[in-house]
Amino acid sequence: MSENRAEISQLGEFGLIDRISGNVALTQASTLKGIGDDAAVIDIGHEALLVSTDMLVEGIHFDLAYMPLQHLGYKSVAVNVSDIAAMNGKAEQITVSIALSSRFSLQAVDALYEGIRAACANYNIDLVGGDTTSSTSGLIISITVLGRAQKNRITYRSGAKANDIICVTGDLGAAFIGLQILEREKEVFLTDPNMQPDLENFEYLVGRQLRPEARTNIVYDLAELGVQPTSMIDVSDGLASELLHLAKNSKVGVRLFEDKVPVDQLTYNTAVEFNIDPITCALNGGEDYELLFTISQEDHEKLKNHPDIHLIGYMHDKIDQNIMITKQGNVVPITAQGWNHFRS
Amino acid sequence: MSENRAEISQLGEFGLIDRISGNVALTQASTLKGIGDDAAVIDIGHEALLVSTDMLVEGIHFDLAYMPLQHLGYKSVAVNVSDIAAMNGKAEQITVSIALSSRFSLQAVDALYEGIRAACANYNIDLVGGDTTSSTSGLIISITVLGRAQKNRITYRSGAKANDIICVTGDLGAAFIGLQILEREKEVFLTDPNMQPDLENFEYLVGRQLRPEARTNIVYDLAELGVQPTSMIDVSDGLASELLHLAKNSKVGVRLFEDKVPVDQLTYNTAVEFNIDPITCALNGGEDYELLFTISQEDHEKLKNHPDIHLIGYMHDKIDQNIMITKQGNVVPITAQGWNHFRS
Repeated sequence: MSENRAEISQLGEFGLIDRISGNVALTQASTLKGIGDDAAVIDIGHEALLVSTDMLVEGIHFDLAYMPLQHLGYKSVAVNVSDIAAMNGKAEQITVSIALSSRFSLQAVDALYEGIRAACANYNIDLVGGDTTSSTSGLIISITVLGRAQKNRITYRSGAKANDIICVTGDLGAAFIGLQILEREKEVFLTDPNMQPDLENFEYLVGRQLRPEARTNIVYDLAELGVQPTSMIDVSDGLASELLHLAKNSKVGVRLFEDKVPVDQLTYNTAVEFNIDPITCALNGGEDYELLFTISQEDHEKLKNHPDIHLIGYMHDKIDQNIMITKQGNVVPITAQGWNHFRS
Repeated sequence: MSENRAEISQLGEFGLIDRISGNVALTQASTLKGIGDDAAVIDIGHEALLVSTDMLVEGIHFDLAYMPLQHLGYKSVAVNVSDIAAMNGKAEQITVSIALSSRFSLQAVDALYEGIRAACANYNIDLVGGDTTSSTSGLIISITVLGRAQKNRITYRSGAKANDIICVTGDLGAAFIGLQILEREKEVFLTDPNMQPDLENFEYLVGRQLRPEARTNIVYDLAELGVQPTSMIDVSDGLASELLHLAKNSKVGVRLFEDKVPVDQLTYNTAVEFNIDPITCALNGGEDYELLFTISQEDHEKLKNHPDIHLIGYMHDKIDQNIMITKQGNVVPITAQGWNHFRS
């Protein structure tokens, strides 16, 4: 390679996406939104079609040492459905492409598709196509999901205004701690294969990692309550990274209150046991697949009694001032450590 | 692995697709056609949306020793656009996901996307999304294409009737012979790196392999001529395999005339040089991305003067009697050797 070779790892995933999308020209009248949100938006009349795609690579996104193939199939679908939910839409169809090496038996493929079909049944979506091929190493899954929404209900990352309230669903950080537990048990197993994994007390955490659910119920609830979020994104890379996406795209700043960030008690205790600050799990852990959104102040009343929606801060008009007020009252900047899988 | 382990290679790609799609239930009213044609069909009002997806794996589908990344990017898009053309539709958007190892520089990614953008410009489609990730080995490209067609213009594999005329565009076998030339030059280069590849007289053949075009112009011409094909498929796995797909799905039999199958003179001569029967290249070579379709007899007049559409046989009502009449007048069964990339 030449001396001038530039490394992808220097850019990171978001930098690479910016580089790719920077040169893209949109010419089709039906393209309402291209790269840059949780899904692309295509005009199909009074409704819009939502399209999102994810690629999952063995050894990068999952480890089959502790990820059962059924769960992997289910999760692959769920994370795509989550992208459609993040646009305030309803997923309807998916395509699933897989590449797999000769290491995988037919039974393995059956197990994977059992999980895929279970997710399709649960989210009420149809598997309509895909591709199957061999790979030179490991398993790769590529899923594209199609969804729909009324055009005036679609929620972009870019609609937040100053004073909008920041909301997040469920709790955060559990999937990350679940991963730490699975990694620990794998190490124990590798040291002594006779040891059985000790997951009994950690079912919730491990379940959040292995079998996350898309928050389609929240999309339903928001419609029922008559709330139109001003911006929305799903929490796949960690709260910090997603907050910064909303802020950047909406040209506002974030003011987050640490004591409002929902962290489950088991997540909290286990994080402490692992010597990890629990708020770090929530901010930078990722894979929670909760929905993060903003609402205008006037919608506060409608949501304040929802048991699974937490108000964690608000937007302000100072761009690039993204801060968290800690439990001790200190002001700290929010930075996305994120997850650069191009870093070696 | 257990003794009862079943191998994917025993099923092959089509067997695996049958197994996967056999258990799929379609529940969405908007799903007009799921797995089993060149594209899925989604109801979006008076038009239908067409969705197709392909995954290309380094070391399986392409060899970067002779496939420049620009060409690979272009071809990845073209083969997807071809699937939409095979439904008699017009491609409008694509998503592109890539997984790549640290072996690839930023310049390599730029070259790949240069080709992708060139294809988008040529076919007048928008790149609207995708995913980027690292891989543990090599490059994987997954593309999903969205297209549209009037519902009554959509052409399935299943509509051919007895006595329908079988038509194919362009010429066949060139991409396969192009691949043989590239493989030969690669061997020569590996033996003596000072040797320059000798491709001068083979530009057409090599070009058919490295930079195929989707036959979107044929879709346009068919509409102009007022011809509605009764069935259609694109030639990706070879004429024999595609003929059998049309026959099986339409519940008819194929009667093919060897002397009508279009093989370019250079393809013919070079095949002979390689000691390969030219008709074998056309029947089993694959990657031609021409369109294979059937028309009713009454449309014969409208098409017979089209310079790039060849009438190569007809369908008859004897299911499973798929035969070719050779130049010598012998009757031989058509069998798909196809391309089982799960075979080791």
